[in-house]
Order: sequence, then C-alpha cells, then structure tokens
Amino acid sequence: MGQTLSEKIFSKASGKEVKAGEFVFAEIDRAMIHDITGPLAIKVFNEITNNGKVWDPSKIVIAFDHQVPADSINAAENHKLLRKFAKEQGILNYDVYEGIAHQIMVERGHVLPGMLVVGADSHTCMYGALGAFSTGIGSTDMGSVFALGKLWFKVPETIRFIVEGKLQKRVYSKDVILKLIGLVGADGANYCACEFTGSTVREMGMSERLTMANMAIEMGGKAGIIEPDKVTENYLGEIIDGYENPDWVFSDEDASYKRIVELDATKLEPQVAKPHRVDNVVDVGEVEGVKVDQVFIGSCTNGRFEDLKISAEMLEGEKVARGVRLIVIPATRSIYRKALKDGLIDIFVDAGAIVEFPSCGPCMGGSFGLIGNGEVSVSTSNRNFVGRQGSPEGKIYLVSPATAAATAIYGEITDPRKV
Amino acid sequence: MGQTLSEKIFSKASGKEVKAGEFVFAEIDRAMIHDITGPLAIKVFNEITNNGKVWDPSKIVIAFDHQVPADSINAAENHKLLRKFAKEQGILNYDVYEGIAHQIMVERGHVLPGMLVVGADSHTCMYGALGAFSTGIGSTDMGSVFALGKLWFKVPETIRFIVEGKLQKRVYSKDVILKLIGLVGADGANYCACEFTGSTVREMGMSERLTMANMAIEMGGKAGIIEPDKVTENYLGEIIDGYENPDWVFSDEDASYKRIVELDATKLEPQVAKPHRVDNVVDVGEVEGVKVDQVFIGSCTNGRFEDLKISAEMLEGEKVARGVRLIVIPATRSIYRKALKDGLIDIFVDAGAIVEFPSCGPCMGGSFGLIGNGEVSVSTSNRNFVGRQGSPEGKIYLVSPATAAATAIYGEITDPRKV
Repeated sequence: MGQTLSEKIFSKASGKEVKAGEFVFAEIDRAMIHDITGPLAIKVFNEITNNGKVWDPSKIVIAFDHQVPADSINAAENHKLLRKFAKEQGILNYDVYEGIAHQIMVERGHVLPGMLVVGADSHTCMYGALGAFSTGIGSTDMGSVFALGKLWFKVPETIRFIVEGKLQKRVYSKDVILKLIGLVGADGANYCACEFTGSTVREMGMSERLTMANMAIEMGGKAGIIEPDKVTENYLGEIIDGYENPDWVFSDEDASYKRIVELDATKLEPQVAKPHRVDNVVDVGEVEGVKVDQVFIGSCTNGRFEDLKISAEMLEGEKVARGVRLIVIPATRSIYRKALKDGLIDIFVDAGAIVEFPSCGPCMGGSFGLIGNGEVSVSTSNRNFVGRQGSPEGKIYLVSPATAAATAIYGEITDPRKV
Repeated sequence: MGQTLSEKIFSKASGKEVKAGEFVFAEIDRAMIHDITGPLAIKVFNEITNNGKVWDPSKIVIAFDHQVPADSINAAENHKLLRKFAKEQGILNYDVYEGIAHQIMVERGHVLPGMLVVGADSHTCMYGALGAFSTGIGSTDMGSVFALGKLWFKVPETIRFIVEGKLQKRVYSKDVILKLIGLVGADGANYCACEFTGSTVREMGMSERLTMANMAIEMGGKAGIIEPDKVTENYLGEIIDGYENPDWVFSDEDASYKRIVELDATKLEPQVAKPHRVDNVVDVGEVEGVKVDQVFIGSCTNGRFEDLKISAEMLEGEKVARGVRLIVIPATRSIYRKALKDGLIDIFVDAGAIVEFPSCGPCMGGSFGLIGNGEVSVSTSNRNFVGRQGSPEGKIYLVSPATAAATAIYGEITDPRKV
C-alpha cells in the first residue's frame, strides 16, 4: 500500500519507511519561536545543554509578534532575552517591526514543500499549505529541538478533505474551513494530518490555502496539508531566487486514510463560528442582525494582502458604523507596505478604521483591542473561546474578511453579498 | 496698573476685576476628560449629584487616548463607561479611533482665545498656545466642574519668557522650551502662568507654539500662554467656519510680572533633556554617541503633521539603524490621514519604522512601546521620569522630532544638523 504525504515526510525525516501509528525520532528542518513561547524554550535549552550551542542556527527563526511593541516591562525583558540569544547563537531574528511569525516563515522562504517544521505556536500548522508537514509544539519540546535538531512523533493518520466546485461570490476559503470544522467538530481530527484537496482547493491562491491550513488545529489536526502544485511553484518562485522543487512529495493514490470528508462547495454560504466554539458554525443568515462593538480584520489566518484587498474593496467609499471599532492589522511589514502602496490603508482610514502596525493584535487578547463585558467582537482570526479577546463576558464571532467588512459597515453581523 | 492676559481671563470668568493672588470662583468654558482620568471624574460627579445632569453637555469633551484600543479588560470597561455617560448626558465623545485628547481639543475648534479651559490631564496647558487660560485639574475637581460649571482658582502670577532671534537650522520650538525649562528648573514656574513671547515665538507656526505651551507644566507652570495674533487667526480660520475673534485678550503693557526670563535664541543648539528630569537639559553635543534602543516620535508634544514632516524629510531614503525600534504615532486621525496622503507614512515605513495608530503610545508607559532594564529611549514626548516608559532601570532622553530622526538613523544620539 502507498503512503500519505505525511508518511513520506516522516519516512525521510526519520531515515526509514514508516506508516501512521509508528513512533519516530525525526530530523527537524525548521524551528520557530516567538516572543511568548521563546523565552521558556531558551530556558529549557540552556538547562539541558548547560548554555550550549543550538544544533543548527540556520534552521531556527525567532519572531516577535504577540506583545509588540512591548506592552509591559516583562515583555520588553523577554524581547531583550530573545535578541541576546539570537545574537549569541547566530540565529535569524525578525524583530518587533516585522510582523506575525507564521506569515514571516512563509513569505521569507523559510518553509519548502517536503520539510518537517515545528513551531512553538499552535497555528504553525499553517505552513502545510506549501506541502510541508508543520506542527505546533510546546516550549519544552522546543528546548530539546534546539539541542538535538530532532523530536519524537507518532506518525499521524490522515483525514482527506475533498472540497469540490466553484465558490459563490463573497464566499472564501475561510468559509470553507469554518464549514469543515463545523462538520467534523473541534476534536474531529485529533492528532491527524488534515489533507485538503479537490477542485475548490486547487483553484485557491496561496493566501487562501494558508487560511485553510492555518485552522487545521481548530479541528484538532496535527497538521494541515495541501499538496504542492503550480500555485505552490509560482508562489515560491516569486519569493525565492532560482527556486526549484526537488523535494516535493505527494500522497500516493493508494495511500490509506483514516477518513474521507467530502464537501460540495458550490452552494456554500458565508459561514460564522458563533461563541464560544470554533465548531459552532452556521450560515451567516442565522446570525444576521447581531449588533457588534468591534470588528477585527487581521491575524495569521486572514491578515494577508489578499484579505485586506477584499475588505478594502468593500469598504471603499463606505463608512464604519458609528460606535463600531474596526481594527485592521496587516500580518507583516511587507504586507503593510504593499497595502500602503496600493492605497488600501487610505481606504481603511478614510472609512474610519483603526490601522495598527503588524502584530497578532486582538487575536489572543494579550495586547490591545480587548473587549469589555457584554461586548461583541466579529473577527477574522481563528479562535472564539471564552475570554480570548478580553472579557469572559464578551462574545466573539469568527468570519471571513468579507463578512467582517460588511459587518463593520452595518454595525451588525451582515451577509457580505449585501455590500 | 494693567492686567496680564491671565488676570483678564479670570476677571471675565469670575465677573469681577481680579489680580494675581486672589481666590476666585470662575466659570469654565470647556472641560475635557480622557479614558484614564474620566471614570473617576464621573464617579465623583454621580456621587455629588446623585446621578444628576452635567451643567452643560456642550462644554464637555470626552476623548480616548491613553489605553487605545483597549489594552486590558479594565480599560475596555472604562471605555464603555465613558461612552455610556457621553450618550446619557449628550456629551461629545471622540472615540478610540480619533487620537490624542489635547490635539483634538485644539484642532476641532473646542478652544478659543480668551477661554478658561480645564482638562483632567496635566498637559491641558497646551491650549494656551491659542491665547486661552487652560490648565490640568484632578478627576475629583472635574467631577465638581461637571456639576457646577465652576471651579475655584488662585489667580496665578505670570512669568514672561521673552525669546528673541532666528533659530538655527534644525533647531525648533522643542529645543527652545527644553532650554527654558533647563534655565528655570522643574519647579521654577510653580503655579505661574508662563507667557511666551518675543520674535522667536511670534515667528512660530501654531504647531510649534503648541509644543511650547504643552511643556509649561514641566517647569511647574499652571498654564502656558501665547498671546493671539495673525497666526492664531489664520489657524482658527482654517478649522472654524466663519471664525471671528471678539474675545481676544492681551497682557497690558504695564501688567505686573513675577519674573521676566530672556533668551537669545540665535545661537541655541538642539537640546536634550537627560534622564531622569525634564530640567536636566544640555546641548546635544554633550550626549552625542549615547547608544539607543528605541526612538519615539509622537505625543501631544510633538505628534503633529509638522513634526512628522520634519522627521520624514530626514528619514527619506535613509534606514533606521539595525536593532533600533523607531515608533511613529501621529497625534490624531486627521494628522494620520494627512500624513498618509502626503506620503509621510510611506517614508516612515520604508525607512523601517513602526507606525501605530493615533494614541498617547509609549509616552506614559501605560500601553505599548515599553523599554526594558538598561534600555535607552529617545523620545519627542514631555517627560523622562524614572520608569515613565517602562522599566525603572531604563533611561529616557527628550528631544525634538529632528533630533529623534537623526538618532534613529545612526542608532545613537545624534545632532540633527549632521543629517
């Protein structure tokens, strides 16, 4: 029997042919930490190596995105510690002005198809959109990776999601992934590789694919994976000089899947994940009219140029509803610059939005853009858990950038097809 | 004997001719609260009036600038409380997307020459640049003002600062006011009205004048005052339709001053206030070469369009020194929009700066942009007290926007005339 893409990556990384369910000790191609999870990883690394050298500084990336610019003395101290470690070890350090770690990993060419990548953040699964196996690990495991360049894994089973058909106008990959999470449930893909395929996925650009893979963790997935193709090649060709693709891997036709989930996307409506679970997903029509206090367009899930462009086109010439705070945050400095040059920032500001510099922003409620008791946030980010964006008495609805823009204009949850 | 401008304003506001040293109960023309000081003012007001109505909602302004967008659940709750109070009382509410209270008060036409204005923030003294008497008061006093529309004052004596001569290239009003603070000391003008005049001040545009008046409190001044003139008239004419100036007042030629301080500004060098006192002022040459970690261009003191333009012209085609964080924050939404349209934001971002949305930002160390132990901040704001921008082990140097830009480029305190 053939192998899945994930089984192939783990076979290569562990030096032997392996199947789902086997335990392996696998070589890591890239490891990422950020300002929240990094300090503990470094502490563990220093303890177990007695302040030694990392296994390969060229394979580690440090980014600053959760508490930037430093929002407490403690955060400032963490940033100092990370910079010092990066300098001492010769590690690439994307400082506080660069943006969200996950998008940096992708757009700066750190992730290639066929790689095994770990990051000390749950949404590390995003990079699987490039045909890599990429997963979030804890800071303690990361300390061990820094020392050894290896980590143990149970090779995961794979669930294959086959999405077919052309999406309706103002329906996007965010709606598809929310629908799939609703279908299988928040624990429906526990410790599985989630392979997304079918004509709908094949038609998606890289930005939309990254949104899909990003949220695999929200159904419990160990990884989100999209097999590489021409879109992948074009994307990497644009960001990496002389890019070639020798290490591409694909699932064999006779590979074994734990489950196959099929979705006809042709009639998919814009989707909304209601409080307080990501799998509490309904068509937008079921929640239309819910009054909102804040709208957030950004995050590793939906803070890319393409997301901003969708929102900006809808907001152009419109005004954010009086009393609603619309916070827009491009995911990285390069996205911010492109949005500036293309006039998107002008559109947002003219419409009445607050445009902040690249960071995770309100997504995880640790920095700014928090909501109060009883307030409602509509957000393009990835989690709507109790208290995630501030008060545990607040409510978070997850949507696409189009639904977010429509909602900001009307001040209540709105079907984006009305704008 | 004649009266000072301040004595005239208090005479009008108290309905009798008064002199410095007298106690008066004076009518308030405008009252401002923001998100930090407002909630307590409202609490006091509600207690003393048993949840009554404010004396005159058209004379009160609420702004949100210190913790925006909300950086804690507590901040979000304060914002809610302020919005609710504004709505119930019919008070003008500049929400979190508008910018710094002091600049809003000026650029939205809330302050006119001859007015008596109070604000629950120490830098309320800024509005005196328009020929008003404007001063910071505590939240408890503000609760009483909300109820009565009046407040007691001791009519202040006046110190007249006469600054003469043409400033050198790359020397600005910030350098002048720092020099004056250094000359008289942080308590040198305690409870005095600080009247700024002389050819140097007369030649200044409104933006530069606001910087002067803004920092009167840093020498202990009760108010900073610049007599109205053609510059004032032009400024108000641009922001208020059909503006006329019937209420202008001036100090009489034979008015009595507590002290006259004269400064020949022709040879003034760029000034720097060293840690940890605003009056610890030296020529830039004395601190050149001090390595910096963060540079902040913004605040009510130096976050206006003219300040950003000075910085942007120096940063155009340059890069922020590697490892230095340059944070730029336009003071208000309208300044941000103008900076966008004029390409200043592009210049900042291309140079490597972090451009955040209008707010007080790192100025008071309560929100973001905090520094860690041993870090050095160079800031265009108004206070360099221990711990003001984060760690008590950090150091803050106060400078003009030009010196800030030069410092960001070289990564160490730099004479702006070198760029």
